Amino acid sequence: MRSVSIVGTGTTEFGELGAGVKELGITAVSRALRSCDADRDDVDALFLGNFVAGMLEGQEAIAPIVADSVGLSGIPAMKTEGACASSGIAFRQAYDAIRTGVHDVVVATGVESMTSAETAEFTRALGSAADQGTEGGSGLTFPGFYGLLLDRYMHEYGATREQVAAVSVKNRRNGVSNPRARFRSEVTVEEVTESRRVADPLRLYDCCPAADGGAAVVLAADDVAAEFADAPIRVLGSGHATGRSAAYRYEDLTTLEATTTAAESAYEQAGIGPEDVDVVELHDCFSAAEIGDSEDLGFFEKGEGAAAVAEGRTAVDGEIPINPSGGLLAKGHPVGATGIGQIYEICRQLRGDHENQIEGAEIGLAHNLGGSGAVSTVTVLGGPADV
Amino acid sequence: MRSVSIVGTGTTEFGELGAGVKELGITAVSRALRSCDADRDDVDALFLGNFVAGMLEGQEAIAPIVADSVGLSGIPAMKTEGACASSGIAFRQAYDAIRTGVHDVVVATGVESMTSAETAEFTRALGSAADQGTEGGSGLTFPGFYGLLLDRYMHEYGATREQVAAVSVKNRRNGVSNPRARFRSEVTVEEVTESRRVADPLRLYDCCPAADGGAAVVLAADDVAAEFADAPIRVLGSGHATGRSAAYRYEDLTTLEATTTAAESAYEQAGIGPEDVDVVELHDCFSAAEIGDSEDLGFFEKGEGAAAVAEGRTAVDGEIPINPSGGLLAKGHPVGATGIGQIYEICRQLRGDHENQIEGAEIGLAHNLGGSGAVSTVTVLGGPADV
Repeated sequence: MRSVSIVGTGTTEFGELGAGVKELGITAVSRALRSCDADRDDVDALFLGNFVAGMLEGQEAIAPIVADSVGLSGIPAMKTEGACASSGIAFRQAYDAIRTGVHDVVVATGVESMTSAETAEFTRALGSAADQGTEGGSGLTFPGFYGLLLDRYMHEYGATREQVAAVSVKNRRNGVSNPRARFRSEVTVEEVTESRRVADPLRLYDCCPAADGGAAVVLAADDVAAEFADAPIRVLGSGHATGRSAAYRYEDLTTLEATTTAAESAYEQAGIGPEDVDVVELHDCFSAAEIGDSEDLGFFEKGEGAAAVAEGRTAVDGEIPINPSGGLLAKGHPVGATGIGQIYEICRQLRGDHENQIEGAEIGLAHNLGGSGAVSTVTVLGGPADV
Repeated sequence: MRSVSIVGTGTTEFGELGAGVKELGITAVSRALRSCDADRDDVDALFLGNFVAGMLEGQEAIAPIVADSVGLSGIPAMKTEGACASSGIAFRQAYDAIRTGVHDVVVATGVESMTSAETAEFTRALGSAADQGTEGGSGLTFPGFYGLLLDRYMHEYGATREQVAAVSVKNRRNGVSNPRARFRSEVTVEEVTESRRVADPLRLYDCCPAADGGAAVVLAADDVAAEFADAPIRVLGSGHATGRSAAYRYEDLTTLEATTTAAESAYEQAGIGPEDVDVVELHDCFSAAEIGDSEDLGFFEKGEGAAAVAEGRTAVDGEIPINPSGGLLAKGHPVGATGIGQIYEICRQLRGDHENQIEGAEIGLAHNLGGSGAVSTVTVLGGPADV
């Protein structure tokens, strides 16, 4: 297997952009290509992650449409979908295609346009990530799923509501300096715990906002990467796994096996453990999710994640900075774009030019999660080889 | 790169089944696994092609849901989407994962549930394969796209309406003996040309019917394939390419470049040419499409395809039998299932147990096409190694 690097990155802001998935895809891919010396002719394939453009825009077949629109007609292009992990999966497929020698240069992108949708339509679209034959059909939404998870977590481990709210406080604080973030204002613990109830014990500010957005990276085999970029980011490990597809199928709702399996696979491939990671972007669709994720990824022992956040151990200046971009809670969650958006933020950290730069960051991790803990990708990235 | 074989196959009937995509996926995958000696523990990954379960059933994240439901929780699973080529792409990704050594045993499946939808909802869902920013938004549907194509083809090459109708006559005849087909009755040339006008010059019987259906195959690396099946079908070549994403982007609407590019790639990999193919399942979403496809795949010179059908050269007993299953025109077109459904039919041919068996068939080709000629996959299969 060959080594693979990220040689180009591009993104839109995440927010209310008034743009559809085609425009977002064209913008993100064009920016990623422009950020490096890759010509259209150099690109061998395109993988595009998207979740609900069918339901919200009546637009499928978006991968070949974007490919043709940006001047890449002819190459293989496909959409990957795994709910909120859709573009984490696109990245993984692009990485596999290069490391195995199928292709030399591949574009991975993710797009979603959500903010123009009516509330009912939007709620139904997001709910499509649940099994309609079981919990989706019963009316359990994702705030409901994570509310159940948090209830159980607080019961099992004695975590407090205030500790959990510290996730939102931290991520909103981190978002203030990130120009790509939808929310750029701080909140207090009290504002979180006293905000409108959504799905008990989750409140409004425990929930990430929707957004429109697109993000893209250009990946290349290490033996050609130097042609395209001066300081390529190395892909050290990649994991992709499924878990349980509905709440009733879990033995323990406080551990999402898709994440633990994907993480194990990514760490093993990278030859590292969680203790070696310097900076993390993980899937904080809800405050409760960040706490579970941080344990599932091995940064804290089971039950210690909530206290760790409240103690500042995951802050930008903490021992293991989590979501210095602001995460989904501040950046927003344009679902199909989120996974590659996280990878974009990690690349900025490893190049040393992030707005919330982690000093000396050499190894970063991005974690994307879809459905009721149904599918996850974990990507471990390393700083430029020549740094 | 390793050689890859198909060791297991499973399908539902194509028709009005009253089942959703989850049930169809469980059935097809379970049947494919049961058809060979692969245990759940042997399966390394699952790729699932689907087009419009989001729009028609409000069901996304279907790949991990099916994986978990059939006892495959833990493995990487993803949905691939490329409109009507969705499961041709799933097959291609599964094949790449094995030949490159990422996995040893992979399930590729395709599912679609369509017949329960209301007409307006159904029309909008199918139309989502067109670029909504250009021809989709202008109201051009797929019968419209292929009507334009046929008009141009008849103008350029002097083909007659009766010659084109011979495609439907042949495929409906072939469907009579296929228990998996939705339509199992014959039509005459006159019945086709006098059927209700849909998008001039296309009539009702020039158009394939919708259907519900699921199809699945189990692929394995050649060095382990013998553990799972006595007579594995060999994958000789696989191509996947994009073309133009809307009618206005074509220089010549009678050639779909996605098909010619994918075919060139598949033939080169297999080390064969069209003259070596014994049996073909190609994407006859409309009678006109079969004629264009048969030329794009190299079976006939440009402009000769229509006469060739009318002369019986593509019949079951013709020189190059096309769609002996009945094709989309008789089997029906459960969009996301069609690509692997075609591969299922070719496997039956190469094992020598098809209802419309082509005598001595040793090499078969399956051709899947999505959108406005936007994306295509071509798969070349060879009979069991020990035959």
